[in-house]
Amino acid sequence: MGDQPSSSSSSRTADFDAPLHLIGFEYEYLSPQKVSGHLLVTHKCCQPFKVLHGGVSALIAESLASAGAHMACGFQRVAGIQLSINHLKPAVMGDLVHAEATPLSAGKTVQVWEVRIWKIDPSNSQNRSLISSSRVTLLSNMPVPDQAKDAALALKKFAKL
Amino acid sequence: MGDQPSSSSSSRTADFDAPLHLIGFEYEYLSPQKVSGHLLVTHKCCQPFKVLHGGVSALIAESLASAGAHMACGFQRVAGIQLSINHLKPAVMGDLVHAEATPLSAGKTVQVWEVRIWKIDPSNSQNRSLISSSRVTLLSNMPVPDQAKDAALALKKFAKL
Amino acid sequence: MGDQPSSSSSSRTADFDAPLHLIGFEYEYLSPQKVSGHLLVTHKCCQPFKVLHGGVSALIAESLASAGAHMACGFQRVAGIQLSINHLKPAVMGDLVHAEATPLSAGKTVQVWEVRIWKIDPSNSQNRSLISSSRVTLLSNMPVPDQAKDAALALKKFAKL
Amino acid sequence: MGDQPSSSSSSRTADFDAPLHLIGFEYEYLSPQKVSGHLLVTHKCCQPFKVLHGGVSALIAESLASAGAHMACGFQRVAGIQLSINHLKPAVMGDLVHAEATPLSAGKTVQVWEVRIWKIDPSNSQNRSLISSSRVTLLSNMPVPDQAKDAALALKKFAKL
Repeated sequence: MGDQPSSSSSSRTADFDAPLHLIGFEYEYLSPQKVSGHLLVTHKCCQPFKVLHGGVSALIAESLASAGAHMACGFQRVAGIQLSINHLKPAVMGDLVHAEATPLSAGKTVQVWEVRIWKIDPSNSQNRSLISSSRVTLLSNMPVPDQAKDAALALKKFAKL
Repeated sequence: MGDQPSSSSSSRTADFDAPLHLIGFEYEYLSPQKVSGHLLVTHKCCQPFKVLHGGVSALIAESLASAGAHMACGFQRVAGIQLSINHLKPAVMGDLVHAEATPLSAGKTVQVWEVRIWKIDPSNSQNRSLISSSRVTLLSNMPVPDQAKDAALALKKFAKL
Repeated sequence: MGDQPSSSSSSRTADFDAPLHLIGFEYEYLSPQKVSGHLLVTHKCCQPFKVLHGGVSALIAESLASAGAHMACGFQRVAGIQLSINHLKPAVMGDLVHAEATPLSAGKTVQVWEVRIWKIDPSNSQNRSLISSSRVTLLSNMPVPDQAKDAALALKKFAKL
Repeated sequence: MGDQPSSSSSSRTADFDAPLHLIGFEYEYLSPQKVSGHLLVTHKCCQPFKVLHGGVSALIAESLASAGAHMACGFQRVAGIQLSINHLKPAVMGDLVHAEATPLSAGKTVQVWEVRIWKIDPSNSQNRSLISSSRVTLLSNMPVPDQAKDAALALKKFAKL
């Protein structure tokens, strides 16, 4: 990872989440208690009115919750079964958004994660406003199929356990 | 575009929905009563276990509902405020999935669209099984901002009104 | 109770769902493929603006889905883990509403039921309009605890299996 | 209210929310920034397995969010359009549960409220565990119809504005 934080975090995302990488999202922090990252809003993640696509926020939520739940059950297989998201405010082209997922409940069979996304005030990064709030429900703790044994590898490499 | 239906439907998607285009989705039918399209499941839309990413299903749902609601209110501005999706079954690499959005309620202020996604049995395209079901709630009928006056153009070009 | 169908369906509801009985709901049909019933909108189920309380619609949805899922897994224990409901239209004091639950997916671990509620046109009962649509996600097929062994009895008595 | 806090809070609930009163819920605090109350889990609010009915949690969520949103827009009319609830843990007969609603977003047209419900550890009331988490989306700021002009009165009487 060395001295190239930006390209390394980008390829980190590429390794374990192709669609999230395509829209430009970069993971920052990965642990069983918290998963976070950021996205610069470009045309790749906008809908026709040039605001952040609500479906992109949902994609981020599902990704971060899945990565977190996967770590929280010891890298067993997880599967999202329900996602509910409220879009609260728009983010426009050029905005920087920050996403953070934390567990609401990490049971043996089911996990529920909350994922919040904020836009950052460019003149003061401490100042941020919530643009969406999600709940992701996942089945947890399932056996990893043989053909996906290496799915956890990229994640393990970077996770803080 | 003439006699090349596949590339034309692809560029049709590119024109008005960048993230949907990036993951490989192609619109087929666009009207105020129904919006549909399809996606071949490739690595671009999979999560690490090589099944269709739940967030991609949510992205498709938000996109199709928004396009439909936009047409149903005479090309005024719409904004998704809530999305709920249930993932019912996995689709794996190589599967062809079909998505269809229809209005549950098309009020003046609020519209609610249902979006269902099926995977198609390759040996018999009449045979399909439901893989997800969504509800998208949108604010409707808002004025189109000046800088987005051309947002509706690409859509109008292809829509059946 | 013999020839008094209305009072018998009322006590049927009382037997296995106390809060649903309190607000006046009556079950009509109970099977693993469909659960239905009706409610006359009185002050007991209204919010302060004298329209059907959205939380009452949610209560009906959770109840019908749970009863259906319980039957669909052979009277094992079920537990609702997520409910999403869209309120589409108001029903007012005096309206008769009809509710119907059907399975979207009845897997071994998870079931998802759709519950729709309509209001009936008093001048023509064939004419009805959808007032809400829900999705209920339930964990299924869990062992019944000893102290609840008779929970299924009232239901079994009336269910069409 | 004098020296009978329990019966007065009970009748307070009766005045403006009949179904919530029927299942035994009592309001404690009402303001545009926070609405809270409590419920002792009795058979009136249980499902057949003798745990708190998930639909009762949804009813509480819808009620508290509506009361809060109604106050937050200056006692104009509000209408719930979407509710999503995750049930995280059971509460059983005899448990005391506490519910609290706070605004996530209080826009002019749409408000989104978060409603959380905890069960209280009887041996230490500071110790509580989250049993459900909801999001309620409401249309806001609509004119109050003539026949409901007094709907706000009971609420105004007790609200802390």
